[in-house]
Amino acid sequence: MTLHELAKQLDARIERGSGKEEISSVEAIGEARAGSVCFISNPSYEKYLSTTQASAVIISEALVVTENVSTPALLRTPNPYVAFARAIELFNPRKDMFVPKVHPSAVISPSAKLHESVGIGAHVYVGEDVTIGEGSAIHPGAVIYDNTVIGRHVVIGAGSVIGFDGFGYAATSEKTFTKIPQIGNVIIEDDVEIGALCTIDRATLNHTIIHRGVKLDNLVHIAHNVEIGEDTVIAAQTGISGSAKIGKRNQIAGQVGMIGHITIADDVTIIAQSGVSKAITKSGTYFGAPAKEFRAALRQEGALAQLPELLQRVRELEEKIRILEGHS
Amino acid sequence: MTLHELAKQLDARIERGSGKEEISSVEAIGEARAGSVCFISNPSYEKYLSTTQASAVIISEALVVTENVSTPALLRTPNPYVAFARAIELFNPRKDMFVPKVHPSAVISPSAKLHESVGIGAHVYVGEDVTIGEGSAIHPGAVIYDNTVIGRHVVIGAGSVIGFDGFGYAATSEKTFTKIPQIGNVIIEDDVEIGALCTIDRATLNHTIIHRGVKLDNLVHIAHNVEIGEDTVIAAQTGISGSAKIGKRNQIAGQVGMIGHITIADDVTIIAQSGVSKAITKSGTYFGAPAKEFRAALRQEGALAQLPELLQRVRELEEKIRILEGHS
Amino acid sequence: MTLHELAKQLDARIERGSGKEEISSVEAIGEARAGSVCFISNPSYEKYLSTTQASAVIISEALVVTENVSTPALLRTPNPYVAFARAIELFNPRKDMFVPKVHPSAVISPSAKLHESVGIGAHVYVGEDVTIGEGSAIHPGAVIYDNTVIGRHVVIGAGSVIGFDGFGYAATSEKTFTKIPQIGNVIIEDDVEIGALCTIDRATLNHTIIHRGVKLDNLVHIAHNVEIGEDTVIAAQTGISGSAKIGKRNQIAGQVGMIGHITIADDVTIIAQSGVSKAITKSGTYFGAPAKEFRAALRQEGALAQLPELLQRVRELEEKIRILEGHS
Repeated sequence: MTLHELAKQLDARIERGSGKEEISSVEAIGEARAGSVCFISNPSYEKYLSTTQASAVIISEALVVTENVSTPALLRTPNPYVAFARAIELFNPRKDMFVPKVHPSAVISPSAKLHESVGIGAHVYVGEDVTIGEGSAIHPGAVIYDNTVIGRHVVIGAGSVIGFDGFGYAATSEKTFTKIPQIGNVIIEDDVEIGALCTIDRATLNHTIIHRGVKLDNLVHIAHNVEIGEDTVIAAQTGISGSAKIGKRNQIAGQVGMIGHITIADDVTIIAQSGVSKAITKSGTYFGAPAKEFRAALRQEGALAQLPELLQRVRELEEKIRILEGHS
Repeated sequence: MTLHELAKQLDARIERGSGKEEISSVEAIGEARAGSVCFISNPSYEKYLSTTQASAVIISEALVVTENVSTPALLRTPNPYVAFARAIELFNPRKDMFVPKVHPSAVISPSAKLHESVGIGAHVYVGEDVTIGEGSAIHPGAVIYDNTVIGRHVVIGAGSVIGFDGFGYAATSEKTFTKIPQIGNVIIEDDVEIGALCTIDRATLNHTIIHRGVKLDNLVHIAHNVEIGEDTVIAAQTGISGSAKIGKRNQIAGQVGMIGHITIADDVTIIAQSGVSKAITKSGTYFGAPAKEFRAALRQEGALAQLPELLQRVRELEEKIRILEGHS
Repeated sequence: MTLHELAKQLDARIERGSGKEEISSVEAIGEARAGSVCFISNPSYEKYLSTTQASAVIISEALVVTENVSTPALLRTPNPYVAFARAIELFNPRKDMFVPKVHPSAVISPSAKLHESVGIGAHVYVGEDVTIGEGSAIHPGAVIYDNTVIGRHVVIGAGSVIGFDGFGYAATSEKTFTKIPQIGNVIIEDDVEIGALCTIDRATLNHTIIHRGVKLDNLVHIAHNVEIGEDTVIAAQTGISGSAKIGKRNQIAGQVGMIGHITIADDVTIIAQSGVSKAITKSGTYFGAPAKEFRAALRQEGALAQLPELLQRVRELEEKIRILEGHS
């Protein structure tokens, strides 16, 4: 493909190039060879711009490139990361791993309703009355329990368990535990992508709901009756306790824990390892355990770093006051 | 079923009802429709009592309902949560997912001894000399290694791995690692319920033991030679390091970490995300990393919130003392 | 086996024994019976030396045993833990769980290249163009995606997922997410051992690399493009974010989180539950969230414990200064 053709496909503008350059692969800027296109999104990689062997680099419209620095051809675009994703697709058409569409080792209950385009990997289990929409893919070893509803273009990662009973027990007077039957289900809307080895528990009553466009990384736990708003992304090893309601477009980092029965606003970012112990009613960035507004958390963390020295300063103050008291 | 019949089944007392009300389902109080019964256990749901469409509400003997507030029929019981569990069972007899009892896709070693009532899901692996007691259920994709002993009425969740080698290595003089063979096993006593995607490692020597009535949520890790006391419950993503001995009736929240080779007393509650770094010898509630007695942890957390302001106050004191020192 | 024969096999020196003692098992020192050998590595177990029923105890050359204390025969060796591992092997030859070598329920893509000695457990999935070297073992339920390269004498634990797509999405201008195709792979070098239910994601471009001798515990998450240096060990439930480069001989405890795109030096130890938020350039021990040098972390933790009292002391200082200011 010529650079000119590539630019057209990516809706990008050529700078410093003739358009006749031959491009045949997408590579990482640090290791790129001639004939490849790479990209810069993170500023820490800009240093490679003058040294890369790539034939072209996708960069943002905003990036200022000094005139006398020699660079490969540049492809200007408002969103280099999205253009990079498209470029990878162009040069690396994905093989379909779901051939045959339903692997013969999978166990599908007769009452499950799967769109004919659905891909089911090896050793998958699909329970009774499950429905799975067009273009969805269930990866090897995943377990989908009875009555789960899965929309269109959904990905369920390898080994994930959807619709297992929620963790609900009532303490008896003898201090043992009685199971609360979990008779609700899980609903996963369109364009949701679930990582590997996640657990999404069925609701006690009603539904656990993962709304359109949500993306979960690996080893994420979603408890019963949780609801996750559209286009929210959650990184690995995070856990959401029962009946929490999470807003739209949240960005929740890894190893975050969230207490149950709380509501999180839209457009909230939560930093890694935070512990969210109460509702968040305002969009913004939150951090810490317990999680607080980002600036307050930073201030507290900064103060904490000064604490050993503060102890020493207070000791000195006490000494000085003893002396002053002696004088007065 | 009439309310009168339901009350009898739940061992509850009718208040504000004729007993002739027809009840046909259990619903959540917020969304309940006529003909349903719901329950209140958490006080934050009491506000629904006057507005719910349910025909009856299960409440505790202790809850005071103002006389002039209009409510549905009330079912009084000492433990509404347990009564709610029974009510769900009454109206929603669970279908048995283990038909046939042993799924033909499961791989069961010939030397394993399974009670005839045991249910084994799709794609389960059961190793040599495993024994599984009456009424136990092994969910799809679970892996049970050699010599594991599983009691009666045990549930092993989907994808859980029981009896994999513990993480034991000895550092050699060349700073590489030699595996310590793990020749012990796992013993799971009666009435234990293990969530999905948990790992319980076999002992190096002797046994890893999960005692009667223990409940584990999803993605919990139990290392080699751990022992967990009767009726202890552990929430999702918690990890217990090797050779820890946990008492009876502990309630351990999610994402807790526990160091190895320590002992935890009976009747201990540990708050989410805590890091337990030494033995706990007294029943009570513990919190933080490192975990400490709850009130001390709260006091420390409260003090921490005042720390940025404290820094400012000390700066002011230093200034005042400079002035006083100038005077004296 | 006589003690003399055992000592020869373990390259140990007999003390306080005739060498004619019959040894037939390895046991834990607390529960050992006559005829067994046990070991002491952790000093907290030295108290058992005079009371154990074992016929011999493996101890370090350095351990001082008081002359008038009666003990079983002693086996002196520079590294008791390694000798203990060898002793277990001698008395407990491991049965091979991979008979037949490739379980008939496993699904192996025709283009995968497996050495004839490789063991593949039940319900394993091996994708296209995977290569697996001599003596490696893939445990039941593991999923190995296309193009993964696995070296010799590698263990992949039950249910682990190797080579699933990394968690890479580009935010579009509409605040939804576009998937970045993940076209790299995973390379696992010789002598690596991966626990149960781990996830190691394939690289976006290039490789996610687990170097020779690395050991991972259970439920560990390794994101795309991570590189882990030789002989590093990582305990359970730890997560390493994308593109992090971890040095050799690191010892990373459980539930640690590590931010992406950072580099960790060789010979670094990271304490449990730490959050590593920036590069570590110097070998040593690190702790806390954010992780800092061990002594600084301890000092901060110690100061934190004094914080509630410090608040009180500052209040008293303020009062005293008010009085002094009144006087002056």
